[in-house]
Amino acid sequence: MRKIYAIGIGAGDPEHLTVQAIDRLNRVDVFFVLDKGAEKADLVRVRQEILDRFVTRPHRIVLVADPPRDRTPEDYRAAVADWHAARAAVYEQFLRSELDESSTGAFLVWGDPSLYDSTIALIEAVLARGNVEFEYEVIPGISSISALVARHRTTMNQIGRSVQLTTGRRLATGWPPDVDDVFVLLDAHTTFDRFTDSGLTIYWGAYVGTPDEILISGPLTPALATRIRETRAAARERHGWIMDTYLLRRPA
Amino acid sequence: MRKIYAIGIGAGDPEHLTVQAIDRLNRVDVFFVLDKGAEKADLVRVRQEILDRFVTRPHRIVLVADPPRDRTPEDYRAAVADWHAARAAVYEQFLRSELDESSTGAFLVWGDPSLYDSTIALIEAVLARGNVEFEYEVIPGISSISALVARHRTTMNQIGRSVQLTTGRRLATGWPPDVDDVFVLLDAHTTFDRFTDSGLTIYWGAYVGTPDEILISGPLTPALATRIRETRAAARERHGWIMDTYLLRRPA
Ligand SMILES: C[S@@+](CC[C@H](N)C(=O)[O-])C[C@H]1O[C@@H](n2cnc3c(N)ncnc32)[C@H](O)[C@@H]1O
Ligand SMILES: C[S@@+](CC[C@H](N)C(=O)[O-])C[C@H]1O[C@@H](n2cnc3c(N)ncnc32)[C@H](O)[C@@H]1O
Repeated sequence: MRKIYAIGIGAGDPEHLTVQAIDRLNRVDVFFVLDKGAEKADLVRVRQEILDRFVTRPHRIVLVADPPRDRTPEDYRAAVADWHAARAAVYEQFLRSELDESSTGAFLVWGDPSLYDSTIALIEAVLARGNVEFEYEVIPGISSISALVARHRTTMNQIGRSVQLTTGRRLATGWPPDVDDVFVLLDAHTTFDRFTDSGLTIYWGAYVGTPDEILISGPLTPALATRIRETRAAARERHGWIMDTYLLRRPA
Repeated sequence: MRKIYAIGIGAGDPEHLTVQAIDRLNRVDVFFVLDKGAEKADLVRVRQEILDRFVTRPHRIVLVADPPRDRTPEDYRAAVADWHAARAAVYEQFLRSELDESSTGAFLVWGDPSLYDSTIALIEAVLARGNVEFEYEVIPGISSISALVARHRTTMNQIGRSVQLTTGRRLATGWPPDVDDVFVLLDAHTTFDRFTDSGLTIYWGAYVGTPDEILISGPLTPALATRIRETRAAARERHGWIMDTYLLRRPA
């Protein structure tokens, strides 16, 4: 039967790869790489570097153009669902045309496949369409938030306390009840700005794990928020894109 | 200067080790291993297997007896703090006597050092005592919850939603407000029992990543809760100890 791997590759440092991931990479015939356009060329490059460095088996790389996505939808979840359906159709087509019954394909997933990533949902959607059969396995990876706190040499949780993982969009609706530590991903709007002078500490990082890594931490004063905002804007300008994430901590 | 690494080794599968972790393992002179007594001998064995398999450099292993801990304290956080202070004193002693100024020590940390683990706090406490100087670096690892969802081939979050990481003790105080996905660690009391027939799905795993792995998932009915409780009790009986964790999902 066709076999598919969703392989977590870590959040930017090729050395985040696990022994298990390297083992699976070396069973793959065809790697499917989503081509998200020029601004994400750097991300495609990290994947290429990983293949060059760790894969000894002959393989092919298939670039799959990502279907267009409505970035300013009325209904966020419906728009994401439409987009996933379009991607499922594209991938089904690729799996059928690029993999014969006995071959193995893989998706290289940024960070950990389980965290704010659609690959698993996409694979399930292709399976649900029922037009192509395959087995699949998920290989966990180092997430951007694990990498972030490791670089800041801090923990996710305080002793015996809870932690929340959320998005910029949701944090904008207010501080989550009952938690002291909040990780924010997918935040294009520096939502931490709304929480200055609330006794929080911020641990911020951009391009974590890459040679361009930037780390800033400290009590979340308006001055520190401004410094992060300006650093972020300048880095985004310089690179053409940015990936950043942060932990907001309320000392218990 | 003395150098210390806190190295995440993954949650039970030696193949969870990252390339970065293996690189750091091979710079270490002395490995400090907490000896937590007979019931944790299996965990010491996984660490030994990792060293045997991945370390080519000569090294020593120092078993450090963990100071006793009050398991039924009145004040949970104060008791943990006392225990950490006692451990800091023990470790300071070991760092001073086992490492000279130019050597490198390491702690092998189960899972990811950032998640419900005291090693980073312990290292900071030794530094704060001010009696011994060293540099230190944290190497992220695959956490038990990443491993759990990978094995269940599901994600941590639902699209655009938040996730909570918490303990059995805290979950016992009620379902956390405003989240749909809750990971529970350190739960000795099968606290999921309180949430049957609430429309939740459970993804449960014990000894995840090891040859003894057990996975159970499905709608959290009273029958499924009983099945997990009984499976857990039997496994705990058989092994003499258990490590289990689970995700409770409320479909959005
Ligand atoms: C679509 S999510 C994917 C997350 C990924 N699966 C993981 O485990 O980190 C993308 C978000 O992850 C965060 N991110 C990913 N890699 C990062 C990095 N190297 N440095 C900082 N943030 C990163 C950013 O918040 C970004 O908006
Ligand atoms: C002290 S915490 C350490 C967590 C660890 N740092 C991590 O990243 O997974 C111990 C708890 O982690 C969970 N755990 C660790 N390893 C596990 C495994 N292999 N299978 C299931 N649960 C595990 C259990 O909930 C256990 O009570």
